[in-house]
Amino acid sequence: MITLGEIAAAAGARLRGCDAATVITGVAPLNRAEPGQISFLTHARYRPFLTATRAAAVILSPRDATGSLVPALVASNPHIAYARTAALFEPATEIKRGIHPTAWVSPTAHIAPDAWIGPHCTIEGGVIVEAGVIVGPNCVIGEQAVLGAGTRLVAQVTVCHRVRLGCRVLVHPGAVIGSDGFGLALDRDGRWLKVPQLGGVCIGDDVEIGANTTIDRGALEDTVIEEGVKLDNQIQVAHNVRIGAHSALAGCVGIAGSARIGRHCMLGGGVGIAGHLEIADGVQITGMSLVTQSIGEPGVYSSGLAVEPNRLWNKISARLRRLDEMFRRLAALERIINRNSTRQPPVQDNQA
Amino acid sequence: MITLGEIAAAAGARLRGCDAATVITGVAPLNRAEPGQISFLTHARYRPFLTATRAAAVILSPRDATGSLVPALVASNPHIAYARTAALFEPATEIKRGIHPTAWVSPTAHIAPDAWIGPHCTIEGGVIVEAGVIVGPNCVIGEQAVLGAGTRLVAQVTVCHRVRLGCRVLVHPGAVIGSDGFGLALDRDGRWLKVPQLGGVCIGDDVEIGANTTIDRGALEDTVIEEGVKLDNQIQVAHNVRIGAHSALAGCVGIAGSARIGRHCMLGGGVGIAGHLEIADGVQITGMSLVTQSIGEPGVYSSGLAVEPNRLWNKISARLRRLDEMFRRLAALERIINRNSTRQPPVQDNQA
Amino acid sequence: MITLGEIAAAAGARLRGCDAATVITGVAPLNRAEPGQISFLTHARYRPFLTATRAAAVILSPRDATGSLVPALVASNPHIAYARTAALFEPATEIKRGIHPTAWVSPTAHIAPDAWIGPHCTIEGGVIVEAGVIVGPNCVIGEQAVLGAGTRLVAQVTVCHRVRLGCRVLVHPGAVIGSDGFGLALDRDGRWLKVPQLGGVCIGDDVEIGANTTIDRGALEDTVIEEGVKLDNQIQVAHNVRIGAHSALAGCVGIAGSARIGRHCMLGGGVGIAGHLEIADGVQITGMSLVTQSIGEPGVYSSGLAVEPNRLWNKISARLRRLDEMFRRLAALERIINRNSTRQPPVQDNQA
Repeated sequence: MITLGEIAAAAGARLRGCDAATVITGVAPLNRAEPGQISFLTHARYRPFLTATRAAAVILSPRDATGSLVPALVASNPHIAYARTAALFEPATEIKRGIHPTAWVSPTAHIAPDAWIGPHCTIEGGVIVEAGVIVGPNCVIGEQAVLGAGTRLVAQVTVCHRVRLGCRVLVHPGAVIGSDGFGLALDRDGRWLKVPQLGGVCIGDDVEIGANTTIDRGALEDTVIEEGVKLDNQIQVAHNVRIGAHSALAGCVGIAGSARIGRHCMLGGGVGIAGHLEIADGVQITGMSLVTQSIGEPGVYSSGLAVEPNRLWNKISARLRRLDEMFRRLAALERIINRNSTRQPPVQDNQA
Repeated sequence: MITLGEIAAAAGARLRGCDAATVITGVAPLNRAEPGQISFLTHARYRPFLTATRAAAVILSPRDATGSLVPALVASNPHIAYARTAALFEPATEIKRGIHPTAWVSPTAHIAPDAWIGPHCTIEGGVIVEAGVIVGPNCVIGEQAVLGAGTRLVAQVTVCHRVRLGCRVLVHPGAVIGSDGFGLALDRDGRWLKVPQLGGVCIGDDVEIGANTTIDRGALEDTVIEEGVKLDNQIQVAHNVRIGAHSALAGCVGIAGSARIGRHCMLGGGVGIAGHLEIADGVQITGMSLVTQSIGEPGVYSSGLAVEPNRLWNKISARLRRLDEMFRRLAALERIINRNSTRQPPVQDNQA
Repeated sequence: MITLGEIAAAAGARLRGCDAATVITGVAPLNRAEPGQISFLTHARYRPFLTATRAAAVILSPRDATGSLVPALVASNPHIAYARTAALFEPATEIKRGIHPTAWVSPTAHIAPDAWIGPHCTIEGGVIVEAGVIVGPNCVIGEQAVLGAGTRLVAQVTVCHRVRLGCRVLVHPGAVIGSDGFGLALDRDGRWLKVPQLGGVCIGDDVEIGANTTIDRGALEDTVIEEGVKLDNQIQVAHNVRIGAHSALAGCVGIAGSARIGRHCMLGGGVGIAGHLEIADGVQITGMSLVTQSIGEPGVYSSGLAVEPNRLWNKISARLRRLDEMFRRLAALERIINRNSTRQPPVQDNQA
């Protein structure tokens, strides 16, 4: 049983117009909340639902609270306050310790007494599993890998040999950490010779790795994901990439070999980053953009094109193929006009 | 042993110029068919092979049948008739019932007597597996998940806790259903706080989910895939997305959070859909396009650009960076011309 | 213990200014190498580190060797020489033979005596595992699949029924080979009927398949990956695709059904290939490009657009939507100018 007062304390919020003793039974969106539930307003698009909500209280920013009469938990950062509130309502999961009888654990692996190794896991020789680690069902941990304290692999995760995960790392199902990088040398007959991938992967503390995301091991040195980085699903991180602390990458991003992403960067879904370049701290890239050169300044960058009706788009893309020709035709016209009307100011105006 | 007559009955086709008693041994493309095999014409590009085919009979549309003398099974929808025919030639698979001795099934899971739980599966507490379900090898089913009657997980599938699959759902290897959504709140220090993902996933009847596709659970309410939806491989569906009934999405599509796709939509390979938008019923998006705003009308939409020789493309993309400048230079020219030749009609013509 | 002389012999390189008896302890990048380690120069960007390197010797091209005084292993193809050198320093892995007690192997599977079947593997009926094959932990091999001699599945790999892998194939974790193709027929009510996928997959010798890559089985005939092809992570290969020998595809490439890629092609990351087209031998496609028509000539092709600052990009894409209009306005201007100045040569110049 959780009261509004307890929620306010956990969320770092201030009660306004509601009773701290009120018992709260759950969290719900504004327009779905029942009496006894708590709700929140973190996007402007939900503001219309605020007046009619049946929620017992709503988490609001000081500004939204001023403009509204609903019972409120006022928080300077309502999104953070909501995250902390929701955490109070996560269903408790049974704490498991030990090694499931169907798991296979090498006799040379070191498993902390309070860690959990789930069904059908394979833990190879020399692996170190620190305190409080949870390895969910059907995971594979390769030789000499290290799982830092409090790390959780949800299920079906593969951690290859000698990969090191920090503390409190959360890895979702199907993720693969430490697969070989795509290192190939071309011989004189046009055949590929595999370049051995001798490096590892180093994952910092508090990193989250999405479902079916893949992170390759380095060719010689490590691929590095710094602390606090959040990777969504189906991201591909090639060998020797470094991702700076507290960056967040949305689904389906692909990063080619040896690229370095700064700290506090945000990459939209489907973004592609070419190899061997550097992106400064604080850079944001919008969805489905392609980065082919280093970016030295923080800011927002884009190259995605949004859909148009197909018939119009076909015309546009046909014209696009002639854009260089168009440019030259335009310049030719300008030359003629300038020649014909020499008393006019020149027609090329570059100002915005 | 299957006869032409039996095939015609199953396919809903009419025999023309062939004997219902003919025994058919298999299905093959027009140009590869041997005597005794049945073939089909569903794409115009294979029509040249029609006259010389050695097939015992060919599934044809009424129009193609009229123009040809080959022995035919005439069907109003030859593609459907072919699908039904091919189903007759699928190799019979041994029917399995029960729980493989290497599977681990929680004592609180409910497994229908005629369901099959394959080797090395992990079935957690409170799971419900309904009649006729086939759970292939090395699958993981989280707590309180429900697999509706006749559903089949091929192998290595992960279904997370409290996810509900309808009836006759088919899930291919490596798919992950119900992983955490990418919910993050940014604190004042630029660090990410995880937003608990308390919702689930609801998958309708007759849905097919491709290999290594990922579907995240909702933040509070469910992510919903309605009945009859077909998802190809490596699709990413973020939290709280809803995909309308009978839509088909090709490989590598990515859909950001809370987007709503209509019914009977078709998305080409690699399409990206931004979050919090709505796409009407009957919308088609061509491959590698990006949708950043809601689409209210059915129709075909595009933003993919097709390759050109690299040297030409480099010129085009260099010019593209100056497109705004080009636009302004063009407008400046128009102003001069209009000024100089006031007896002319204005030069800006917007008609197609 | 490995000497420089042994390395030179293995790498096919010539010693210059160093002692064949020198013992080498490892491989390292130029700027990190310690005395006793060997290094290499394969990219011009590392040349500045050459003079100050502490490496015992550096693998160099004849040209770089001429310009430098460092102890060298001179090789006509330093990248190949490096790959062979690095292979000497791969940590030896214990040779395993037999079947792990936690694996489940059908009594009708044929496992070569010197093959290894790892923990929690599922090997279905009729599977053939040839000499020296290594099946890592938690793999699933479907009925009647064939793994050629020397093939290695790292972990968590799914090989579906009747798929055939050649010799020395290397498959990384999470890859799925032989999942159903995305074959659907649309009925008159707008519902999808599954088209049975009766074909298989045939993988040639010396193919490498990246983590979480998916390769669908053919609809009737096989999907084919020819010998020496290298596939990076998270690639999607649809049914009935054929990829020619010795082609290399970077991460996140998607290939639609029945496309045929030539031999010795190179596809950059995130490239999309439409269905039912042919790409000639020796074609290179740069990253995130889209191919919608057949390519008949070798060469480099592109359609990716690189990022600009978001504000500029928004202007560009707004103008792009009006590109057809711009084209027509430009043509109208040309007509007026040509009319007004008939003594001038016509303004449309198409020459480069």
